[in-house]
Amino acid sequence: MNKINLQKLLSNAKKIIPGGNQLISKRSEMFLPGLWPNFYKKAKGCSIWDLNNNHYYDFCGMGVTSCVLGYSDNEINQQIVKAIKNGSMSTLNSYEEYELAKKLINIHPWSSMVKFTRSGGEACSVAIRIARAYSGKDKIAICGYHGWHDWYLSLNLKNKNNLDKQLLPGLKTIGVPKSLSKTTVPFSFNDKKSFDKIINKKIGVIIMEPMRDKLPDLDFLRHVRSTAKKINAVLIFDEITSGFHDNYGGIHLKFGINPDIVIFGKALGNGHPISAIVGKKNIMNRSQDTFISSTMWTERVGFVAGIATLNKMKKINVQIKNINKGNYLRMKLYKVAKKYNINISICGLESIPILKFLHKDSDRLMTYYTQEMLKVGYLAGSQIVMSSSHTQSIINQYIKAADEVFKSISKYISSNKKVPLKGAVKHNTFKRLTT
Amino acid sequence: MNKINLQKLLSNAKKIIPGGNQLISKRSEMFLPGLWPNFYKKAKGCSIWDLNNNHYYDFCGMGVTSCVLGYSDNEINQQIVKAIKNGSMSTLNSYEEYELAKKLINIHPWSSMVKFTRSGGEACSVAIRIARAYSGKDKIAICGYHGWHDWYLSLNLKNKNNLDKQLLPGLKTIGVPKSLSKTTVPFSFNDKKSFDKIINKKIGVIIMEPMRDKLPDLDFLRHVRSTAKKINAVLIFDEITSGFHDNYGGIHLKFGINPDIVIFGKALGNGHPISAIVGKKNIMNRSQDTFISSTMWTERVGFVAGIATLNKMKKINVQIKNINKGNYLRMKLYKVAKKYNINISICGLESIPILKFLHKDSDRLMTYYTQEMLKVGYLAGSQIVMSSSHTQSIINQYIKAADEVFKSISKYISSNKKVPLKGAVKHNTFKRLTT
Repeated sequence: MNKINLQKLLSNAKKIIPGGNQLISKRSEMFLPGLWPNFYKKAKGCSIWDLNNNHYYDFCGMGVTSCVLGYSDNEINQQIVKAIKNGSMSTLNSYEEYELAKKLINIHPWSSMVKFTRSGGEACSVAIRIARAYSGKDKIAICGYHGWHDWYLSLNLKNKNNLDKQLLPGLKTIGVPKSLSKTTVPFSFNDKKSFDKIINKKIGVIIMEPMRDKLPDLDFLRHVRSTAKKINAVLIFDEITSGFHDNYGGIHLKFGINPDIVIFGKALGNGHPISAIVGKKNIMNRSQDTFISSTMWTERVGFVAGIATLNKMKKINVQIKNINKGNYLRMKLYKVAKKYNINISICGLESIPILKFLHKDSDRLMTYYTQEMLKVGYLAGSQIVMSSSHTQSIINQYIKAADEVFKSISKYISSNKKVPLKGAVKHNTFKRLTT
Repeated sequence: MNKINLQKLLSNAKKIIPGGNQLISKRSEMFLPGLWPNFYKKAKGCSIWDLNNNHYYDFCGMGVTSCVLGYSDNEINQQIVKAIKNGSMSTLNSYEEYELAKKLINIHPWSSMVKFTRSGGEACSVAIRIARAYSGKDKIAICGYHGWHDWYLSLNLKNKNNLDKQLLPGLKTIGVPKSLSKTTVPFSFNDKKSFDKIINKKIGVIIMEPMRDKLPDLDFLRHVRSTAKKINAVLIFDEITSGFHDNYGGIHLKFGINPDIVIFGKALGNGHPISAIVGKKNIMNRSQDTFISSTMWTERVGFVAGIATLNKMKKINVQIKNINKGNYLRMKLYKVAKKYNINISICGLESIPILKFLHKDSDRLMTYYTQEMLKVGYLAGSQIVMSSSHTQSIINQYIKAADEVFKSISKYISSNKKVPLKGAVKHNTFKRLTT
């Protein structure tokens, strides 16, 4: 078979799909512009094969943090295939949505009602609608990343840099109604001052990620919790990224601080589209006084994937294992870095180490790291998501490969030379791609 | 095995899921309150088995109009199962999204770019964002039903009855920011006067369903098209319900009137969650100047389902066959109604007859019809979606059963008595369900 020109294929895709795909975080430009394999044929465990059957180990996002149990898990597949053969759509409803709701409530004893959607941004919009309906107030205080919807991007209407501190800089508000400009205010993570500055009784909803890159200051989190109660605002924790990685449930359970609503996605279905809005009854029931409804939210596969994922996570105690792997990887990477006098930082959840080079041109260094690791069969970037499929042996192989690249990087740094790239430096913000 | 008390189960589900499920149109209350089987175990072809293994033929929504090829089609299943076994999520992208985009553009030669989401309301929000970004104007003229999102429900902020004429009366705006009240204006289907009254150069987007229950007046549709061009507004056809039923593509192709953006969902994946926003390049490319992105939009099953569905639809020419079935059913139902002196109307797409009793208490009569048809093994309501699985023989059986119920109805009508219901009359609007 002839080798497929993957870059040509991507360039063709960009001609008919704006940006070439459906997600900024899966763009080649976010990793290795012009050289990233971009399209996959098969993904199993922590292995990915591109369209030319090249094999890579995923020491990168594992499907943007969604596949905690590894790609294409046999046990989950078995349940999904059964659901598909028995019909995943029908005029009647899936019994499994009730089962999944019960499970989520059991894991989060402070909650008592659940709604489901198929994608994360959509789930956030549902939570916001319910919270606004309950509080009777339109104004939202926002910290962190919560997707592409109008309510969130409106934060940039008054000040186009408001969202820059919240994960992805450069988010444009074109197409977001200007009349929303006064509906949102930002605050910074772990920054009590910035929170107190914007908070007042007009705020009806406070939404934040309880953790992304950095551990929360528990005093800060408790302050947010008690303030929300005081001003009669609904506190929403967006745990689409943090949920079910370091513990079985929302990471807020570890901190002992409960929101009024928590949102899950990604890991909940181990890569199959299912999101959940889990909350207190008096608040969630307000969703009945407004209109929130969608056909594809009733499809069976999402619920079945959610149930199968939770069952397997619990059975194999995956979170403890992934934390151990993450900490092992962290320790090993620090050791390698020290060996070659390279300054790095590793933050993130315990099971999702986030690597950063603390030298000038750090994005260029990361691009070089990705470029060199790709040559020896690793998809490697800043974020390293651990899964049940990352065995000790595979992790050790990765460390060995990383050792070689760190060694090479150290030579360039010590001789004050730029690391050589075959393409451009990776993007670290949201940028328009020309087609 | 003990028989499951389905009504008790639904009542339990309502305690932890607001309204009991994720979609108003699949609520038991919309068909037969207190008696509808609600939960299914298996759906195959046009057959559904409830949790107690009772068998029904679906002469109802076929998954809210999504399963044109019947439930759980073997050929589509084969492709999806393959995709699941080869991994439906990965750090790299699905090649199939490019393939599906190409197919949709080929079917709609006026278009040249495509974006995908997983649910219909979400797809509408994407289209609205892109259209607003392109036109540079926030104001939207709206006709028809387009989901639950803020931009749509904002129509009811100024006048709580604005949406009543657009399909589902009684939609509440609680939780929708009041500052959106001036961003939308309604117009009525096939009503040039109502359209001209609200249209002006401040309108940046016109969104409508080109057909739902009634055939469009082509002069009206042409007028909307030319006016949109004149005032530099983006014309969006929402074909989530009308697409791929009466013809292979958007129904606008039949009318020879092209929008700037068309939205598909439901039938596109034969019940598997996949939606598409298909449009002109200069407009669609504006999506790169704003931020629209979601992890679960990259998952492979949706694209694979879309491709497999389009291939099979084309191969078996399903639309022509379903139209013939719909027209046959229509003719037969009119005949039966005439035989018993019952006044009915049947509107809708040719392949989706919508039955209505033209007598007082028409909702009560429809509830009785559903109640009696259920007893003899049919899920039967007002909307009757034809699929490739509805054979001549099954349709004739349904007609025979309908004949009996019509006969019974005629006795009550002629003796001026109410038809006897075991439960309440079905809902025909959006209502809060007490839990």
